[in-house]
Amino acid sequence: MPDIRHRVVISAPRDRVFAAVATTDGISHWWTRDGVQGESREGSRLQFFFGKPDPAAVVEVTRLRPDVEVIWSCVEGADEWVGTTLGFDLTQKDGDTVVLFTHAGWRSPSEFMAHCSARWAYFLLSLKSYVETGQGTPFPEDLKF
Amino acid sequence: MPDIRHRVVISAPRDRVFAAVATTDGISHWWTRDGVQGESREGSRLQFFFGKPDPAAVVEVTRLRPDVEVIWSCVEGADEWVGTTLGFDLTQKDGDTVVLFTHAGWRSPSEFMAHCSARWAYFLLSLKSYVETGQGTPFPEDLKF
Repeated sequence: MPDIRHRVVISAPRDRVFAAVATTDGISHWWTRDGVQGESREGSRLQFFFGKPDPAAVVEVTRLRPDVEVIWSCVEGADEWVGTTLGFDLTQKDGDTVVLFTHAGWRSPSEFMAHCSARWAYFLLSLKSYVETGQGTPFPEDLKF
Repeated sequence: MPDIRHRVVISAPRDRVFAAVATTDGISHWWTRDGVQGESREGSRLQFFFGKPDPAAVVEVTRLRPDVEVIWSCVEGADEWVGTTLGFDLTQKDGDTVVLFTHAGWRSPSEFMAHCSARWAYFLLSLKSYVETGQGTPFPEDLKF
């Protein structure tokens, strides 16, 4: 099954990057300011909103290892997303944090997958900017493409 | 074999996007201002420079279909790049151009591939910005990550 995989280096310690990907407040600063609902703990669900009354995606938090790893399983959303797995793997390297992001288990290498791949890279750079400067570019302030 | 695939929509007609990916001058405005040497025609080679005396990559132009498609085969460069294929597929959609970029044929889904995946998305947004506004972010003005 084809996967999306991106590696981004962030000039900040791991705990700050972890807080940005493992808390609803953190996620709202780089992915969607429109709303992240739910509880970010293993076994709970998170809902992500992008300008519509219904969430664009619902995930189950399947792993949360402080400062090391976050894994979500997509349970609702775009057809092609349901059943996929999203992961943020954090590694300390000198004073930086290496983020290895994976959106795995796509059924086919579709054009929508290629769209999401570019979008994820964009939002990971938003994550980098948020952690390093306090200012990200989450929806709806994101560049549309 | 794992592939990198990104889809980006550019608000410009196809011929302008084609000129940006199929000419040495065009490429220098969004990928590397440090130097693109060679001739962009089928069967010729292009060399891409990134701040060092030797090119970081050398490709053979294997297909050049005006306003439709550019395909390069990597013949020199990073070990993991040699033997891979890079493609820009252009489709008109209303007044926009949909770019489907593929960097295919990687031997394994390595961390370097994940790095290149995020880098390509960044440079495709540089391509978009260059075509739409005249201003890209090629090396060495690129964001480092």
